[in-house]
Amino acid sequence: MSSATTITVELGERSYPIIIGNGLLGGGFDLTPYLAGDDCLTVSNETVAPLYLDKLKENLGGSVVESINLPDGEAFKTVETATSVLDKLVGSAANRDTTVIALGGGVVGDIAGFAAACYMRGVAFIQVPTTLLAQVDSSVGGKTGVNHAQGKNLIGAFHQPRIVLIDTETLDTLPDRELRAGMAEVIKHGAIADPEFFGWLEENMPALLARRPEALAHAVQRSCEIKADVVASDEREAGRRAILNFGHTFGHAIERCQGYGEWLHGEAVAAGMVMAAQLSGLESTEVGRLQALIDSAGLPGRPPRISATAMLGAMGMDKKVLRNKMRFVLLNRLGDAKVTSEYDQARLRQVLEAAD
Amino acid sequence: MSSATTITVELGERSYPIIIGNGLLGGGFDLTPYLAGDDCLTVSNETVAPLYLDKLKENLGGSVVESINLPDGEAFKTVETATSVLDKLVGSAANRDTTVIALGGGVVGDIAGFAAACYMRGVAFIQVPTTLLAQVDSSVGGKTGVNHAQGKNLIGAFHQPRIVLIDTETLDTLPDRELRAGMAEVIKHGAIADPEFFGWLEENMPALLARRPEALAHAVQRSCEIKADVVASDEREAGRRAILNFGHTFGHAIERCQGYGEWLHGEAVAAGMVMAAQLSGLESTEVGRLQALIDSAGLPGRPPRISATAMLGAMGMDKKVLRNKMRFVLLNRLGDAKVTSEYDQARLRQVLEAAD
Repeated sequence: MSSATTITVELGERSYPIIIGNGLLGGGFDLTPYLAGDDCLTVSNETVAPLYLDKLKENLGGSVVESINLPDGEAFKTVETATSVLDKLVGSAANRDTTVIALGGGVVGDIAGFAAACYMRGVAFIQVPTTLLAQVDSSVGGKTGVNHAQGKNLIGAFHQPRIVLIDTETLDTLPDRELRAGMAEVIKHGAIADPEFFGWLEENMPALLARRPEALAHAVQRSCEIKADVVASDEREAGRRAILNFGHTFGHAIERCQGYGEWLHGEAVAAGMVMAAQLSGLESTEVGRLQALIDSAGLPGRPPRISATAMLGAMGMDKKVLRNKMRFVLLNRLGDAKVTSEYDQARLRQVLEAAD
Repeated sequence: MSSATTITVELGERSYPIIIGNGLLGGGFDLTPYLAGDDCLTVSNETVAPLYLDKLKENLGGSVVESINLPDGEAFKTVETATSVLDKLVGSAANRDTTVIALGGGVVGDIAGFAAACYMRGVAFIQVPTTLLAQVDSSVGGKTGVNHAQGKNLIGAFHQPRIVLIDTETLDTLPDRELRAGMAEVIKHGAIADPEFFGWLEENMPALLARRPEALAHAVQRSCEIKADVVASDEREAGRRAILNFGHTFGHAIERCQGYGEWLHGEAVAAGMVMAAQLSGLESTEVGRLQALIDSAGLPGRPPRISATAMLGAMGMDKKVLRNKMRFVLLNRLGDAKVTSEYDQARLRQVLEAAD
């Protein structure tokens, strides 16, 4: 057993806890009270399952556990892969009381959650994120879905989990590059909502990259608190929740222009955040602080060479476009974001041309 | 213009009107206030579109209208067809303000609604049902989805429309067999919830089959009222809503054993209702009244020859199975249904063996 922190995502009857601790897998936390019935389907991938699936089973008591392991990678975040999970549910005669449990990173969680949303019009769902990106971002908030050839996350559903179980010990096995990519979303949370946390990150980035457990635990906890707060205020992204997309409009465009898989999502978001900060017209010292923090995390502070025309085209298909009027998440200052379609056209061109 | 009746489905912030009238298409009702934005995608099929798509456009004012027409038939109610609608949305650069409009029968509505639920995690949706079955049943209540090779409606979402527009004039072009199949769901509404309506149907079935407009209008209206009431009390079918599945457990099993497409859904439900009434242990005069009404509608009052074993197997995969314990919708008497897993095993075998 080990100590754990609980954060609640306040969503009325859909409220749920995020449990954060070191060593929660392997029986350190009893998940059975969160199952809808006696059986579940774990959805993992070929990389994570060998490391943690047996441990997860120890958290599931005597439940009947079926498992499916997906191929690893964003390239497999497709309707076809989601359909393979649905086929597995049908094949194992899963019913309305079956619980789908995602064990893995963001891709696994997004696919498993979407399958859970669609099977029999919605069955129970649990997130057990094992990457930093999933722990601080994608596992919280109920966004699920898959990519379309023409754009990321175009097909999906809002489907909240019953619980998010975060064992920070799983970060021990995370490759360095993925740890850094997850750090982009941690930095994002500071940049959009908490100047103090941003300052803490500036001081503690070396400890985080050295995987100091207390540092990682704090970064995960504060990120989840910020995200839980934003999600609770606007579950379906009618307004404020969009601030969580800071850096993502540019980031998605970078990913689309490069072809998915070249840069990790977090890397593209890192460069995208700097572009968004520039578009915000922040003082150059503030842009410099953001850039320096991103740099200290070993993330790219500027985009790869892409033509401005290609970027604009790619942003035109971004799903955050509202009636052909571009919306951006901009910063009033570090730690304070807004969603707006009021932005400086000339500065946008400047920002894009700097990468041209 | 023409007179219309409005029924409201009371679901809090998801409440919506059902508008019923003769001649509402062709501009007889302005749908533009119900669009989320300036553009929409109509989803119809190759049979219905030539008859009513141009008329529907007259209800859409100056909106930008994209259209997709699906192949006609239950066989096409698949993930692949839903994906073709999603592809069309992506291809026409639909955004979060795009509205999906289903024009057709239950298959079109179910597929279009599911695509609307999944595109960008949910866009606005409007139902314009043109078959009796869709007008009295599938267009109301927010159930959307597609079939899996192993079972009907296994993949789907709850996604309520913004409005249901029912032009009863569209029934003029409905083939006789489909009119009768839709009548099964009308009879179902009487049988589960309204003995008086059941009696009215016994008197007016000849007028309904002769397509007398006042008779059809009343049947559609009363069916929608009953369904709206049940749905409002239990949107996600946690309990009472399941009474709408009266006859469907047997009906789905018949469809599965026969292979989909042999009998129409309504025909299988008709035979299934008689089987469910027999299992209910109703007085034989009551079963007789149900059977006679079904007979007078030109519907099958008994199943085709299927072995009891095959039926039981087919029911085992029915998605209404709860933890391997069969639940049935049974009648206390005509006009009063309940959901229960308390039923007479011997009588179930008897009912099934009568068809063997």
